[in-house]
Amino acid sequence: MKMTKIVLNFKTYTEATGLAALELSRICEEVAAGYDVEMVVVPQTADIRLICENVSIPVFSQHVDGVGFGGYTGSVTAASIRGAGAAGTLINHSERRLQLAEIEASISACRTEGLATIVCTNNIATTRAAAALKPDYVAVEPPELIGSGIPVSKADPGIVTGSVEAVKMVEPEVGVLCGAGISRGEDLKAALELGSVGVLLASGIIRAKDQRRALEDLLSGIRG
Amino acid sequence: MKMTKIVLNFKTYTEATGLAALELSRICEEVAAGYDVEMVVVPQTADIRLICENVSIPVFSQHVDGVGFGGYTGSVTAASIRGAGAAGTLINHSERRLQLAEIEASISACRTEGLATIVCTNNIATTRAAAALKPDYVAVEPPELIGSGIPVSKADPGIVTGSVEAVKMVEPEVGVLCGAGISRGEDLKAALELGSVGVLLASGIIRAKDQRRALEDLLSGIRG
Amino acid sequence: MKMTKIVLNFKTYTEATGLAALELSRICEEVAAGYDVEMVVVPQTADIRLICENVSIPVFSQHVDGVGFGGYTGSVTAASIRGAGAAGTLINHSERRLQLAEIEASISACRTEGLATIVCTNNIATTRAAAALKPDYVAVEPPELIGSGIPVSKADPGIVTGSVEAVKMVEPEVGVLCGAGISRGEDLKAALELGSVGVLLASGIIRAKDQRRALEDLLSGIRG
Amino acid sequence: MKMTKIVLNFKTYTEATGLAALELSRICEEVAAGYDVEMVVVPQTADIRLICENVSIPVFSQHVDGVGFGGYTGSVTAASIRGAGAAGTLINHSERRLQLAEIEASISACRTEGLATIVCTNNIATTRAAAALKPDYVAVEPPELIGSGIPVSKADPGIVTGSVEAVKMVEPEVGVLCGAGISRGEDLKAALELGSVGVLLASGIIRAKDQRRALEDLLSGIRG
Repeated sequence: MKMTKIVLNFKTYTEATGLAALELSRICEEVAAGYDVEMVVVPQTADIRLICENVSIPVFSQHVDGVGFGGYTGSVTAASIRGAGAAGTLINHSERRLQLAEIEASISACRTEGLATIVCTNNIATTRAAAALKPDYVAVEPPELIGSGIPVSKADPGIVTGSVEAVKMVEPEVGVLCGAGISRGEDLKAALELGSVGVLLASGIIRAKDQRRALEDLLSGIRG
Repeated sequence: MKMTKIVLNFKTYTEATGLAALELSRICEEVAAGYDVEMVVVPQTADIRLICENVSIPVFSQHVDGVGFGGYTGSVTAASIRGAGAAGTLINHSERRLQLAEIEASISACRTEGLATIVCTNNIATTRAAAALKPDYVAVEPPELIGSGIPVSKADPGIVTGSVEAVKMVEPEVGVLCGAGISRGEDLKAALELGSVGVLLASGIIRAKDQRRALEDLLSGIRG
Repeated sequence: MKMTKIVLNFKTYTEATGLAALELSRICEEVAAGYDVEMVVVPQTADIRLICENVSIPVFSQHVDGVGFGGYTGSVTAASIRGAGAAGTLINHSERRLQLAEIEASISACRTEGLATIVCTNNIATTRAAAALKPDYVAVEPPELIGSGIPVSKADPGIVTGSVEAVKMVEPEVGVLCGAGISRGEDLKAALELGSVGVLLASGIIRAKDQRRALEDLLSGIRG
Repeated sequence: MKMTKIVLNFKTYTEATGLAALELSRICEEVAAGYDVEMVVVPQTADIRLICENVSIPVFSQHVDGVGFGGYTGSVTAASIRGAGAAGTLINHSERRLQLAEIEASISACRTEGLATIVCTNNIATTRAAAALKPDYVAVEPPELIGSGIPVSKADPGIVTGSVEAVKMVEPEVGVLCGAGISRGEDLKAALELGSVGVLLASGIIRAKDQRRALEDLLSGIRG
């Protein structure tokens, strides 16, 4: 059985940029060591190398473009983040939506580079479509709950169970994560009970007064 | 059994804008009357009403945004094209790519208004994903063949058969059209033999010296 | 001296779509006849032809793409809206932002077709840049005030006077309109006193219980 | 008098990614030391830190988004590249076009972080508009010449002199760079004679069989 996946998106929060991103990654590494989870940190592109050189938990990029080597100024290539040490990436986050063809090209480029992929979606229908592209994970997040502090597992449990069911029918190998509003142990527990294999979260941990304590509270949700 | 669908995209060609668009639509109506096909014309948004008032074959829009009534300046809503007389729309043409969430929202808005939907895709993987969103049709078009004069049915028959197979497994109700480089009767015939239910075409007919003759040549492909 | 310009953006409001758009345009024509103003209505693309055939005040499009004739599916060309009867267009509205090169190409395409152009901007710096592209008008609208009911002329008069001054230095032929939150006669009066030559407005009139009365209240602001 | 600026855009070329990017940056540093030029290297975002830690010439980013700290997944912030050691950035490259409001926000964010800005443009009109936003430099590049090997200074000298003149009238403090197709000493010399203060280049150097020799040939153009 796969370990529960906890994916912490640093976004561009000041509390998770540059040296603060490194410090937060170290906290994640330390706290996660006490639990049976796979903890993933997702810093800004410019910080990937710094963090990969200093922590041993997996580091993901927040975005990868669906282009390869060539004349693509300003693109984030799978090869460049792989070279910096990343093990995977988010794709199509609601704050960085991609065209359908770009999502497919990005997944394909990541596959070539051996990078894991998490495609973000906004409802059951798009989850179903994203799963058909065979990423490693789909993370369903109702946009209106992102950053709200209201956990999707409580506000809209049907979107999680519906997504799990839809993915099972289209591409059962794809794992379903859920996100939006999740920050506490009980939210994580509820998310797992609804059939997800982990969570994608951000502000609830990053903007907490005490990031370490917030993370410990979250992970307590998977204790016996 | 459904009739073969012939979808003619007017793009922004001068030979298919304004009064020329109306004239071309009349030719389509006349020529198609002699065949067992459903002929669809796809003019620019500003020309939809003019054409709908003057021909009786179905008129589709080239694009519909996934937004409803409200503060959305410059968007093409399903309601507005419905009001102008359209019966359906292309979505996500390679010259007007949309984000995954937008495609889903557009299909959903069209469903509410009773409009038929054709989602365009660029390869088998995106065809599979698009079918999972349950449009009426998916039209697969390798971008490099669009406007090339080299028919997809000859250059890459595998993309057509692969798309037909993929759609059958994910959502068998969705019809597969194929496009890119198609203009002659033999191309259409080959496309149907590969399992598609029709074709999406443009420059091969629109930019022909004699549009009527080009269309007649195309439709001859479905004769006995 | 130029007449005061009153530009009413219909957006995709249900109260300004299809037949309701035609009805509203007629109200605009009737009410404006009593005042020394140039009243412009800005319906959705699919409604342009219907309105142009039935009213004699200028009709603008909400958006024009910077492309010409050719392989541009889903684009709104200057030629297509000109053919439908439009006399001009908004470009780069905050709900339909364009790239810098697209704005320039759109202005250029409109110039070729003899269409008037209003480029929308969000602050003094972008107003200055937009004016450098030599459209007929720039309409400055702080995005946070759009649809707010709080008139820019009261909330941020400095953005209007600053825009007027900036345009005067870069390209004095360009007229400055101001928008966002404007609906009443006193708002219009204040806007003109700040140096603008007119206003761009939407929800304050369109969503009013009585559109005719709202418009009359607005225009009373330019009386003696 | 300012030193001639040579800006080498690494794009996503394999010959300029990861360790190859570092090696190329070292070559740039060594070759430029022999000339009275300011040499700038522009690697992918994920490579900025690696290069900044190992060379002392200025390192620019290929792109910066116009957003600050907060909920902006996948964005490249001015703060993040500043933290990684960058001294400036390209903005609005033809392979990464931005909306007008984004360009202005990006310049503004860079100014706050003390980063130099080079806004790329495609013709005289957009150069004029970009200069009105007061970046440090504008780099004019006719898109059709990018990667062509045909130097803009030969194919279209009027776009360079026209841009220099336009910028002088709108915002004389802004320096004009020229780009597209430049690779040899004579191209650079011609560019400077046309009034530009330097060049933006890419494939001509990066894809050369011998990058060092290509760079030396280029810089020979500014010798006595």
